[in-house]
Amino acid sequence: MEKTGEYKRYCASYLVNSKGKLTYSALGNELLNCAGIHANERGFGRKTTSDGTYGWVLSRLVMEMNDMPGEYEDFTLRTWVESIYRTFTNRNFEILNHKGHSIGFARSVWAMIEMEKRQAVDLLSMHGENMAASVDAEKECPIDKMSHIRVHAETPIVQNAVKWSDIDINQHVNSMKYTEHIFDLFSLQWHEAHPTRRFEIAYMTETRYGDTLGYYMDEVNEKEYVIEIRKNDTTPVVHSRIIFA
Amino acid sequence: MEKTGEYKRYCASYLVNSKGKLTYSALGNELLNCAGIHANERGFGRKTTSDGTYGWVLSRLVMEMNDMPGEYEDFTLRTWVESIYRTFTNRNFEILNHKGHSIGFARSVWAMIEMEKRQAVDLLSMHGENMAASVDAEKECPIDKMSHIRVHAETPIVQNAVKWSDIDINQHVNSMKYTEHIFDLFSLQWHEAHPTRRFEIAYMTETRYGDTLGYYMDEVNEKEYVIEIRKNDTTPVVHSRIIFA
Repeated sequence: MEKTGEYKRYCASYLVNSKGKLTYSALGNELLNCAGIHANERGFGRKTTSDGTYGWVLSRLVMEMNDMPGEYEDFTLRTWVESIYRTFTNRNFEILNHKGHSIGFARSVWAMIEMEKRQAVDLLSMHGENMAASVDAEKECPIDKMSHIRVHAETPIVQNAVKWSDIDINQHVNSMKYTEHIFDLFSLQWHEAHPTRRFEIAYMTETRYGDTLGYYMDEVNEKEYVIEIRKNDTTPVVHSRIIFA
Repeated sequence: MEKTGEYKRYCASYLVNSKGKLTYSALGNELLNCAGIHANERGFGRKTTSDGTYGWVLSRLVMEMNDMPGEYEDFTLRTWVESIYRTFTNRNFEILNHKGHSIGFARSVWAMIEMEKRQAVDLLSMHGENMAASVDAEKECPIDKMSHIRVHAETPIVQNAVKWSDIDINQHVNSMKYTEHIFDLFSLQWHEAHPTRRFEIAYMTETRYGDTLGYYMDEVNEKEYVIEIRKNDTTPVVHSRIIFA
């Protein structure tokens, strides 16, 4: 089996923004979906680990796009494992448009946890062999790794209770729902004038129905913002950086 | 070409709720997507009408489900035209689970409008021939048509400004985003105890970025609610009925 997996996708109407381009949260959903398929196909997916005792958890995701697929267009996702460590693994992605031209890349960091205890497992002893066979050392991912993010703002610009539609099958706020909420911190007019070039998100802890999420934001450069989401005014949940064109 | 179109779909992780079942808004998105493909294939889609001058607009949608596809399951959508009138058409759907068993049906009403003027066109003269060839008189849709909805509540239970992520390529709030927001009127605990059996939604006027949406709700029976969404405290935008099991 090829080390790098390749998956055809279709940009349906309901995945695009007001400019007719695939949103970052919809792209993120598809990346995570393809990561799961790639791992399952190669023997180290969630499905292959004794009926749900263990699951993959996304720790960080960076997406950097020069363009996005448009409404009704096909596109292609490629994904491969870059490296494996004891408690985490780096997985990369390339995104190609309907003409087969590369339009962007993504980097992600994952851990596998024991679902009940929420404790990271030793990847090398659990999946070392299958994962090692999937490391594609020849594929390059020419975007920077996740940056260090520090937010100084002391007042949230938005505060929202977690909604039913935020919650996924694990009873936590879905990772891409945070992304959607971060994009909603900027106006329609801003988004229409400034396509997002790069988006980073790191997950520190989980949130549940009943929690309140506060969004703290600094402008660090022109068209560059860092965001911290805190639950119930205290615990940092998510760090994010968004860079507009 | 077959009158009824049949489309295979996959229930990815990001389409399910806390119980691991496809959400009504995700199902609705797929129904609308397949309606578009079905119409395009048969010569009366948006794509076949001179570069976007005309577009299909959803007027009403009813979904009644005995079960929903689960996470990672394949499912099948069937869609056909029930009837054609001068300014609207009835399109129905059947939903089958991964075993090929029917798990529910949907009914929808559509108009085609001239996009600039927002005026309905005469379907019989514009598409009569192609559409007539797609009317499947033998397929049954054994669920009730949309009911009449009247809401008496005078105070909104929720009021929200339209967000960037609500807006679609037509610069209006996306039809399935209203659905998601209506489901968010009920708690996680309520949804987990009461799967939705039937959902109705009718669209009266469009809303834009900058509008504020108020949600007015009456309990009409045990486990049955009607909702009116009003923009800017006055104009009715959406009528909806939700019936839980």
